[in-house]
Amino acid sequence: MASAGNSVIDRATVERIVRQVALEYLGRGSNGKAPELVVQASSRHMHVCREDMDVLFGPGTELTVQKPLFQEGFYAANETVTIVGPRSRIISNLRILGPMRKESQVELAFTDAIMLGFSDLPIRISGDIKGTPGAVIVGPKGVVELKQGVIRAAIHVHMNPKEAAYFGVKQGDMMKLRVGGASGLTFNKVHVRIDAGSKLNVHMDTDEANACGLHLTKDVEIFK
Amino acid sequence: MASAGNSVIDRATVERIVRQVALEYLGRGSNGKAPELVVQASSRHMHVCREDMDVLFGPGTELTVQKPLFQEGFYAANETVTIVGPRSRIISNLRILGPMRKESQVELAFTDAIMLGFSDLPIRISGDIKGTPGAVIVGPKGVVELKQGVIRAAIHVHMNPKEAAYFGVKQGDMMKLRVGGASGLTFNKVHVRIDAGSKLNVHMDTDEANACGLHLTKDVEIFK
Repeated sequence: MASAGNSVIDRATVERIVRQVALEYLGRGSNGKAPELVVQASSRHMHVCREDMDVLFGPGTELTVQKPLFQEGFYAANETVTIVGPRSRIISNLRILGPMRKESQVELAFTDAIMLGFSDLPIRISGDIKGTPGAVIVGPKGVVELKQGVIRAAIHVHMNPKEAAYFGVKQGDMMKLRVGGASGLTFNKVHVRIDAGSKLNVHMDTDEANACGLHLTKDVEIFK
Repeated sequence: MASAGNSVIDRATVERIVRQVALEYLGRGSNGKAPELVVQASSRHMHVCREDMDVLFGPGTELTVQKPLFQEGFYAANETVTIVGPRSRIISNLRILGPMRKESQVELAFTDAIMLGFSDLPIRISGDIKGTPGAVIVGPKGVVELKQGVIRAAIHVHMNPKEAAYFGVKQGDMMKLRVGGASGLTFNKVHVRIDAGSKLNVHMDTDEANACGLHLTKDVEIFK
């Protein structure tokens, strides 16, 4: 029924078609097809530094693997802590993700943050914690008062340089993620994080996953 | 710096410009400007029918107004109930919204639903509850076992016929809602509900509000 006069093709669609045709023309059509996209929800969690690990779990203790994550070398640890927020409410069983990092950091969804009393938690790319709120963290062997490091992690996509070339994006760019299904929505600011060891993988938080009904659909698409 | 060759204007933008120009040309430009858009998050709540009100709060009791809602004639009631979900977990202080309706209905965000044990709650337009899960509802005077009526309400926009004419939409159409700010996203399936007494008003649930950081931005825009 569509004719040129009432076409519903938008600019993004045209870009994708042009990109596909161009890749085929360049001879990459056969081995350059779209990489498989894995979209995952990250529940609230903590990253811990060596110094805080010593206080929370005891000097020289190490994280132990509960479950490997999709990105190689990363894992959910058996170790959990309790976070105490500004309203003196707590969340127990806050899981630590390994391996250890240079700085401790807590990633919460807004639902968690509002419950704990962080009324305007900053949205940051992981690792960018300067000026963010702190919290009291209670472990089995001791208590740490984080001066900063509580954030809502910005939605982001991990990929390797080959995948970045496929999409035509560079470190720090933004992409869009369309999720279909009954709650269909498009995330307009998906931060691109490129690393040689990465596999194509979007991380969103539980609020975002619940908003788009991620557990109900496999219709996901990432594009510039 | 933009030229015709690398324009970033997309179809939706063109439509809006054309619509604006057309309205001005038709002499509606001065008094036909964009109606003010109010976007609100609805927390989980219940609508109650006369029969269930009798059981939960006592025969012949009436809802009492705690706070009027933005849509005229609607209100948050002082009355609250407790919902018991399939995992035997509960949510207390579930507020009733008035006035009473023909059928009882509970609207939950997925965060609430998953906690209660509704693993795949249907997404429905309010009132369309056929085949949805039920739940046990506990009030101060009695208990009701809802056979159906627990839903996640689909994101929707209320408007009157004049506003519908402005946007060029009809009952049952879908619009898009773009929310700016750091979590910028676009809801692609906003159901249009037209009623003579309505004021332009988007209702989303708390998961959707938290996903887009609605409390952090006033940059909202609705379009076809």
